[in-house]
Amino acid sequence: MEGTPNPASEWTAMGNEAVATPDPSTFEGRDAVFLQDFTTLCTFGATPGGGVERQAGSPADGEQRAWLTGLLTDQGFTVRFDRIGNQFGLLELVPGAPYVLVGSHLDSQPSAGRYDGAYGVLAAAHAAFALAEEWRAAGDTPRYNLAVVNWFNEEGARFKPSMMGSSVFTGKLPLEDALATEDPSGIAVRDALAATASQGTLDGPEPAYYAEIHIEQGRGMERDGVTIGAVESNWAANKYEFVVHGEQSHTGSTVMADRQDALLGASLLVVAARDVADQFPDGVLHTSVGQLDVYPNSPVVVASRVTLLLDLRSADEELLAAADRALHEQLRVIEDRARVRIEKTGSHCWGVTPYQLEGVELAEKLTANRGLKHARVKTLAGHDSTNMKDIVPTVMLFVPSVDGISHNEHEYTTDADIVDGLHVLTDVVRALCAGELDQPAT
Amino acid sequence: MEGTPNPASEWTAMGNEAVATPDPSTFEGRDAVFLQDFTTLCTFGATPGGGVERQAGSPADGEQRAWLTGLLTDQGFTVRFDRIGNQFGLLELVPGAPYVLVGSHLDSQPSAGRYDGAYGVLAAAHAAFALAEEWRAAGDTPRYNLAVVNWFNEEGARFKPSMMGSSVFTGKLPLEDALATEDPSGIAVRDALAATASQGTLDGPEPAYYAEIHIEQGRGMERDGVTIGAVESNWAANKYEFVVHGEQSHTGSTVMADRQDALLGASLLVVAARDVADQFPDGVLHTSVGQLDVYPNSPVVVASRVTLLLDLRSADEELLAAADRALHEQLRVIEDRARVRIEKTGSHCWGVTPYQLEGVELAEKLTANRGLKHARVKTLAGHDSTNMKDIVPTVMLFVPSVDGISHNEHEYTTDADIVDGLHVLTDVVRALCAGELDQPAT
Repeated sequence: MEGTPNPASEWTAMGNEAVATPDPSTFEGRDAVFLQDFTTLCTFGATPGGGVERQAGSPADGEQRAWLTGLLTDQGFTVRFDRIGNQFGLLELVPGAPYVLVGSHLDSQPSAGRYDGAYGVLAAAHAAFALAEEWRAAGDTPRYNLAVVNWFNEEGARFKPSMMGSSVFTGKLPLEDALATEDPSGIAVRDALAATASQGTLDGPEPAYYAEIHIEQGRGMERDGVTIGAVESNWAANKYEFVVHGEQSHTGSTVMADRQDALLGASLLVVAARDVADQFPDGVLHTSVGQLDVYPNSPVVVASRVTLLLDLRSADEELLAAADRALHEQLRVIEDRARVRIEKTGSHCWGVTPYQLEGVELAEKLTANRGLKHARVKTLAGHDSTNMKDIVPTVMLFVPSVDGISHNEHEYTTDADIVDGLHVLTDVVRALCAGELDQPAT
Repeated sequence: MEGTPNPASEWTAMGNEAVATPDPSTFEGRDAVFLQDFTTLCTFGATPGGGVERQAGSPADGEQRAWLTGLLTDQGFTVRFDRIGNQFGLLELVPGAPYVLVGSHLDSQPSAGRYDGAYGVLAAAHAAFALAEEWRAAGDTPRYNLAVVNWFNEEGARFKPSMMGSSVFTGKLPLEDALATEDPSGIAVRDALAATASQGTLDGPEPAYYAEIHIEQGRGMERDGVTIGAVESNWAANKYEFVVHGEQSHTGSTVMADRQDALLGASLLVVAARDVADQFPDGVLHTSVGQLDVYPNSPVVVASRVTLLLDLRSADEELLAAADRALHEQLRVIEDRARVRIEKTGSHCWGVTPYQLEGVELAEKLTANRGLKHARVKTLAGHDSTNMKDIVPTVMLFVPSVDGISHNEHEYTTDADIVDGLHVLTDVVRALCAGELDQPAT
């Protein structure tokens, strides 16, 4: 069934005929339980369009976190929150030893799909449950302890920046800055965590390794018939916040030559970002403006101020630099055309960085052992693993996404693929817990 | 002093060094009182930038309405509100006769100037006070009764459409539709009126004539040294609401060729509107997009839906039609380029319509009598008089605006000009109340 449409009998009545609901009846044992739990998880913040909306710190996020706490506790895991609201399910079998962390995030974009993040957290939990049972049955003790993690606010839709929980955990973002961050209505992270009973007093467990599984958010693996992608690096990205400054005036009466139209300037910037991407072959450079806010945003007032977030991404750092220069050369042209001033008020740039090669090779070996097709892939989007790989060896796995649809209610991965992904993730975590990637003592 | 900067001594300490505060000390009698009252009026909803923010039905709007009630009542006028919240100060000297209405609006845009609308209402009140006193002193009775009017929601910033109060009064907009209109936060006009004690149970007085004075919102009169503009017609306008439909996806991972970017489509539309205007000599065609809303407006999500309000205006109906065609021809091009669908969800179009010639000639005669320079002008912006002229003979006067600045905190008209305008308005209303424009009985 991999990569092919599900039969009609699986179509859901949730209001979105394009998304099939997981069907546990065609699987057995732990796989069926996993799919059943995933079906339950899809109900938190469910949207009429067949997706979910559970932004970080929202009531729906609080509900799914409480549900996850119950799931973990029932399996003998101890649930703790750290100061930024990362949720850990701890299984301490080796007192005082560091932990293999495995997880992702449950928070979502507005009107998002069901798989982004949520699949990774639930697969992590079920991988951990399987291993705990294995060790118990065999009387084995792993070399490391095991923790399932649900990172806080990976999406960054409500509170910026994205990957907030893992950024604080890895020391890249000060805790106090994160807690003080406000959403557009003025609610601080601190208060959202309190409202969802998600703020703890711990620092989180000491990590030895990290593993995560996620949908691809692209169509390459589906096209190539690959079941498991071993992520070898992330794309480089330059993210900018621009403020376009114009002058407020009357849309009806102000002659065109007198206007200093911030929205015209911003629109030219959106178009310029696209033009830069179109100068390169498709697939090598991604540019976007996803967020844009107009002030005063009245029908009869020429805008005085527009704020927008623009990003450029590429797997090729030199190409990215060339594209970045081309975009910046346009700023002066736009300023002259629209009689505005463009201010860069923020930037967040990162280069291409590799995931540890030994982790990639481990993923390839274990995938091959199960007779599944694998390939090395790059991640275009940011993930919590992008942060974690900078402090511990990290294995990041992808499963295919039908039509590459992402951040959309129609996001879909087949049941067969998410179950195969669970199996490989379980194998990876087993190996990590056994110390298979440990460096020999020198 | 007309048209020249005020001396440094008049600069205000209100935080905006570009706007001088009215200075009653250089005027005498009624003129000084008028300027003093205008200074008071500028304090309602005053902004740090030297302007005002008192959108329709806001607390600041309620406060200034209560203040106006006191001002009118003190002078013997009876204050009544009609069902849509238009505020009338009635002086009934001829029982049962229709009324000469004179007024404008006190509501403002966000971070607006002090003069737009507010000057017209206060000048109307002071013209009425002077005439009431004249008639009382001379023992005269005019042919018509007199009413000062403060129309509800001329600006349309918070509740759409603009000119709401005069549209209901003139039968162009159903009362129930207006009362049910909600602002972006879901508050209905009905509730905003109740919260500001502004909803009455009357239909408003029967009108015989209407007069209004306003700042020009352009720089033509200032350039030509004209003190009083007699408005002879309004520009034609085509106003459209467009919804650009794309498909939500991940900004980081979706290849450019797969994107259906609603914000790119909307930006191309903003630029296209400007391109159309630039095809014509400056000053003959105005195009604008002032309001634009993005969904879901997240930094990492390609927008699925953008709503925007676009308008084209010209004094030349044929030119406007040609420009409108040129814009519409671009829609298909934009749909193809951005892979979006552009839907027109609303339109509001009007042609060039004249103000009654006898009113224009009356204004010219009375201005000349005072030794002031006058000219016939067209209004590019809509006004409540645009509605009123369709049901009764209407005289619309303009005073110059320094640098033509409008819908901006820096909006400014000199004290000399607003006082001259008050005098001519008083003369016009006196003549209208005396029946000078009445048609001879046939």
